[in-house]
Amino acid sequence: MGRRSAPASSLPLLLIAAFAALNATPLDLATAAGEDAARISGFRAGDVAAERAREAQVAATTRPDTLRRHLRILTEEPHVAGTPADLKTAEYVRQRLAAYGWDAHIEAVPVYLNYPGEPVLEMIEPSREPLAVREHGAAWDKDAYDSEVFSAFHGYGADGEVTAQVVYGNYGDVDDLKRLTDLGIDLHGRIVLVRYGRIFRGLKVRNAERAGAAGVIIYSDPLDDGFARGDAYPRGQARPSDAIQRGSVQFLSEAPGDPSTPGWPSAPNAKRVAREAMQGVPKIPSIPIAWAEAQKIMEALEGPVAPTGWQGALPLTYHVGPGPAKIHLKTEQHYAIRPIWNVIAKLAGRESPDQWIMCGNHRDAWTYGAIDPNSGTITLLEMARGIGELAKKGWKPRRTIVLASWDGEEYGLLGSTEWCEANAVTVGANVAAYINVDVAVSGKDFRANGTHQLRDALVEVLGEVPDPGRNVSVAKSWRDRGFTDGKADWSRLNRERRWRGEPERPFQMDVTPLGSGTDYTAFIDHLGVPSLDVRFEGNQGSYHSMYDDFEYLDRVVDPGYAYHRAMVDVWSRLTLRFAEAEVLPLHYSSTATFVLDELRAIEDRADDANAGVEDAAKRLTADVAPARTAATRLLDAARVFEQRSDQALAGGAWPAGSAAAANAALIKVERAFLGAGLPSRTWFRHEIYAPGINTGYAGVPLPRLGQAVLDKDPAAYREGVEPLRQAIERATAVLEAAK
Amino acid sequence: MGRRSAPASSLPLLLIAAFAALNATPLDLATAAGEDAARISGFRAGDVAAERAREAQVAATTRPDTLRRHLRILTEEPHVAGTPADLKTAEYVRQRLAAYGWDAHIEAVPVYLNYPGEPVLEMIEPSREPLAVREHGAAWDKDAYDSEVFSAFHGYGADGEVTAQVVYGNYGDVDDLKRLTDLGIDLHGRIVLVRYGRIFRGLKVRNAERAGAAGVIIYSDPLDDGFARGDAYPRGQARPSDAIQRGSVQFLSEAPGDPSTPGWPSAPNAKRVAREAMQGVPKIPSIPIAWAEAQKIMEALEGPVAPTGWQGALPLTYHVGPGPAKIHLKTEQHYAIRPIWNVIAKLAGRESPDQWIMCGNHRDAWTYGAIDPNSGTITLLEMARGIGELAKKGWKPRRTIVLASWDGEEYGLLGSTEWCEANAVTVGANVAAYINVDVAVSGKDFRANGTHQLRDALVEVLGEVPDPGRNVSVAKSWRDRGFTDGKADWSRLNRERRWRGEPERPFQMDVTPLGSGTDYTAFIDHLGVPSLDVRFEGNQGSYHSMYDDFEYLDRVVDPGYAYHRAMVDVWSRLTLRFAEAEVLPLHYSSTATFVLDELRAIEDRADDANAGVEDAAKRLTADVAPARTAATRLLDAARVFEQRSDQALAGGAWPAGSAAAANAALIKVERAFLGAGLPSRTWFRHEIYAPGINTGYAGVPLPRLGQAVLDKDPAAYREGVEPLRQAIERATAVLEAAK
Repeated sequence: MGRRSAPASSLPLLLIAAFAALNATPLDLATAAGEDAARISGFRAGDVAAERAREAQVAATTRPDTLRRHLRILTEEPHVAGTPADLKTAEYVRQRLAAYGWDAHIEAVPVYLNYPGEPVLEMIEPSREPLAVREHGAAWDKDAYDSEVFSAFHGYGADGEVTAQVVYGNYGDVDDLKRLTDLGIDLHGRIVLVRYGRIFRGLKVRNAERAGAAGVIIYSDPLDDGFARGDAYPRGQARPSDAIQRGSVQFLSEAPGDPSTPGWPSAPNAKRVAREAMQGVPKIPSIPIAWAEAQKIMEALEGPVAPTGWQGALPLTYHVGPGPAKIHLKTEQHYAIRPIWNVIAKLAGRESPDQWIMCGNHRDAWTYGAIDPNSGTITLLEMARGIGELAKKGWKPRRTIVLASWDGEEYGLLGSTEWCEANAVTVGANVAAYINVDVAVSGKDFRANGTHQLRDALVEVLGEVPDPGRNVSVAKSWRDRGFTDGKADWSRLNRERRWRGEPERPFQMDVTPLGSGTDYTAFIDHLGVPSLDVRFEGNQGSYHSMYDDFEYLDRVVDPGYAYHRAMVDVWSRLTLRFAEAEVLPLHYSSTATFVLDELRAIEDRADDANAGVEDAAKRLTADVAPARTAATRLLDAARVFEQRSDQALAGGAWPAGSAAAANAALIKVERAFLGAGLPSRTWFRHEIYAPGINTGYAGVPLPRLGQAVLDKDPAAYREGVEPLRQAIERATAVLEAAK
Repeated sequence: MGRRSAPASSLPLLLIAAFAALNATPLDLATAAGEDAARISGFRAGDVAAERAREAQVAATTRPDTLRRHLRILTEEPHVAGTPADLKTAEYVRQRLAAYGWDAHIEAVPVYLNYPGEPVLEMIEPSREPLAVREHGAAWDKDAYDSEVFSAFHGYGADGEVTAQVVYGNYGDVDDLKRLTDLGIDLHGRIVLVRYGRIFRGLKVRNAERAGAAGVIIYSDPLDDGFARGDAYPRGQARPSDAIQRGSVQFLSEAPGDPSTPGWPSAPNAKRVAREAMQGVPKIPSIPIAWAEAQKIMEALEGPVAPTGWQGALPLTYHVGPGPAKIHLKTEQHYAIRPIWNVIAKLAGRESPDQWIMCGNHRDAWTYGAIDPNSGTITLLEMARGIGELAKKGWKPRRTIVLASWDGEEYGLLGSTEWCEANAVTVGANVAAYINVDVAVSGKDFRANGTHQLRDALVEVLGEVPDPGRNVSVAKSWRDRGFTDGKADWSRLNRERRWRGEPERPFQMDVTPLGSGTDYTAFIDHLGVPSLDVRFEGNQGSYHSMYDDFEYLDRVVDPGYAYHRAMVDVWSRLTLRFAEAEVLPLHYSSTATFVLDELRAIEDRADDANAGVEDAAKRLTADVAPARTAATRLLDAARVFEQRSDQALAGGAWPAGSAAAANAALIKVERAFLGAGLPSRTWFRHEIYAPGINTGYAGVPLPRLGQAVLDKDPAAYREGVEPLRQAIERATAVLEAAK
């Protein structure tokens, strides 16, 4: 799906576990290549040079023309999941991976999904006017002109027909719709017009449906990804006035995957839930539109002026209605069980073939998918070629590397979710880390979402990759940007630490806690696999529109493919290090520190939520000390384990008695955070990471407590401490047993 | 001038000195009229009923039709300072005040100021197009149609002609122009296009001039007061596409008043500085324009996309240029020494005629001045009528009440500044408090800027005035809005207090620290008179345009004049209480608490500014403990004084030996905060309150330290402590001597 919102956590940029080179002086390339050259986490000093040489070889293999050729082929046709064009891309990817020396095959998965008929969308009051349900295209771009792209529709959208007055509902989140109610505006039977952004689109439809609306129109406001963010395509990469954001309206934070097989694999003869009984998909019709069409509706809304913060960048005063704008909307969905095609490729490990490092990227697209996801697919293919070259010269990794080209991600992470459900035991036993790239490049700003034990390995890698736009490492670019954004918070947090008598911390970058929206979801949330998602990010104005095509990427976003080459470099170094390290660089001291910090942040947010609340029964109060004590013990255990591992690499004795046992223990730690499932969504089993139930994309870490504060739910807050404590103690026990 | 920006202080909404009734439960009318009826600060319990009866009588006198008739007469013609129409309004006001029983006279003051010739403004590249320098008006509104309003010009603007490429410079503040330099854009010889807002307009021109620009165009972006803030006039009160904000471009934060007589009175035969040698007025031409005209220029700007935060609400992507837009600007200014006319009216005190309570409002306007300032003038007249009725029935106030209808405020606070300079000794000796109303009503939200010793008296009054829009007091409306905006800060500050081991504080409203922009400036900053400025505020989209006329106020802003009546009620109660109180309700415990809080906030901001600064010489470090110790002593002394005053009112002994001596001491305290003058602007002598040198409107309290942090000036920061400490100790000594 390839798009992120800001995390709900208050501490996205502030870092935590120490990596010495980044502390006081920013790391530049010279430093990285110089004094730190002696160290890669998990490697003996004597093995570092050979590892670096392999990584440099892959980087040297990467070529812009290969990347560009892959892109031209993959984006030749729109390739929605399950279509013949999609199958063609699966065959191309399988064939390329095989040619690069990988053991590659296609796995078809039968899933339930919809293709659209031609929708009807017209304003009938105050005047009759049809509204566009297709982009008009650009004459000079063959893809954006002679288009086989589907008309405006939503994946998992409902069939339906409605004629009703319109109400404007801002981003359509729970608070927005409550605000309308407070203004005395009834949504029952009405069509809600909301803008994209802030939360996952399926939750906008869910919220409107639960508020009684009869239909939903979602438009892309130019404030969020249009001209207010930069020049529109083709002058720049912001959204043109006619570009429509297609996308899934599954209730992603409640359950991803095929909604006809919730929690079990979509095998050919699987039991399936009937459409009427399906959870997590809308019952009211919805449609996406471009801002030029939305403007026509907004111009015909009266009623109260929209509340502060609801005004977008259309050149008019936003009103909430209802009406006088009245819309006739008819959607037609062709649902069926259709095959989608994951491509899985392996390079078997020489020493620990049952320990897997897995890399994934989806391949299906709403249109041509140049940025989303094929910028990632060409990166995957180029990485596979580079690593394949190493293998052809006789090298084999210590562990098995598995590459996945997922299908059906756009509809609801179908390929990865169903594959994880079908291979749950193997994944649980084998996969040491999962590294996802969805959109590889939509701009110049490096971003990482992940689980925190991976942070140190990531930062080490970033220190060695040159930023294509500056004469410094990606680590330094990332840190400089993070420091600009996060300096004020960092300074305040240190001041608070002084007041509490705690030591100050140096500024450091960290991964952003995982939410959802792409294929790591089943790995981390359902199966407890350490996961990372990396990208170079910018304003992705072509997102899910017809303009997400070859010309957009090739002319505007990354001409020269320098950022794609940098992403191949980042991804392949990460993969090679996890595949080759003598001890897996999984640092649970980082995880424990994150948990401690997040507990503090949640307590502060609870305190804020209590401000002015006189009724004791409505105040959020809980004794979180048991969770904090548990996390402190985890921190101690992890530090001992990490220290002993380092000593072993320097010639000392192994924790757990052997390298094999140490690695086996490390793989088990994250699984220990899985519990019985979160309230109202038991498929989500992780006690540290989850998407917000009302955000979809953004994570709400320590989800029982974090969500309880957002929901202002005192009982959930009190009851959330114990399952968290237990999960942390299970993880601690794994590490302590291995000391 | 009638417009405010957010204060630079970090604690505008958080309150400080305790007023019990507001602590835990919000005050509503019933409470105010009930259990607190026994108390008015400074009054004996036995005198409260009579005081309330007088106040109620004034309120009962106030009539919408009188207010409306005043407005119709005062706004009949545009009445720029010094014009025949302005003199007519002076004569009307004098005549009315005399008729209401006041001793009223007109004082002419000869001042240096400009009227415009017809300017030339045209785009000459990329295409030739004249740009409008007048509003086009509204056919149904005789004022906004058949207009004698001056064309677009700036008070104290420079003559000049320039043809140059345009650069867009956001709000034109110091940081904005520095950002342009960082982007490699040279302002020398260019015309800078900036938007109104954030800082006083004169400082925009000053900053551009100091950066080498040849001319300045200032436009009103619809994001700041146009359609993005609400429906444009006449549907609502936001700025129409053609409305031009005229205004002064004096460098207000460096020195107000007649620039030909800086620091001394503009007497008929005063020594005057020649135009070439004048400080604080621009040397490069400038002109204001409407957003519809600015859009034509913005559409013709290329170069880099404007930085984050620079995008306004025009429907295009903002670029900074330079060019290709090229502009020809010619301004013609007719400067002369012209008379302006203050109207001064007195009602002599019966017991302490040499203690004055002064109320002021300006009368001159850039156009018709319905909102700015005549909403205040009609309020002043109606208050004068009400108090006059009391006097006609035989009552005289304990102290003298002085009313001032200032002239020339719009050019640079001319009338009030020159009057204060001419009457400095009398003001210093006599004026116990100055209460200013500039714009009385531009909306429904009560706001108060002031010095903190007045806060308790203000809150007591607000508790008795019904909010016209809700069935509660203005105090409660004000608090509810403040709690919504300030809750998060309040909660965080209490958490920080807990961490530091300090007691928590209840949420309370406070006055916003004074900056500048209206006629209290000479009173507080130059002469140390406790000052207050009150208003009901909204989006004042007609501001300084032709649309600031009778229809705008009468049809849109306050039809029925209910908010004007509420303002008469607030202002007259304040005036009557200060004039009648046995002991002046000047609570320096509030001032001391504010100073302590602001010291803390400044230290935190210094800490933030130091974040990431490695060079010790560039870090802001100072030992502020001596200032804190002094403020703590002031707090103690004030509490003792207030306690003893209360005891005296209950029959005990007076502090200072007598009520007269206690009041004499109270009047002296604020004067003690005056020092030798602030760095680079010695006319500003107050050590607690000053406008920011780069904000103009917004205050930067404890200005030596506050400004040093904003400027990141370590030497100024270190050196700022001692003058502050001395000022606080001088004030403390006055109170301690009176114990």
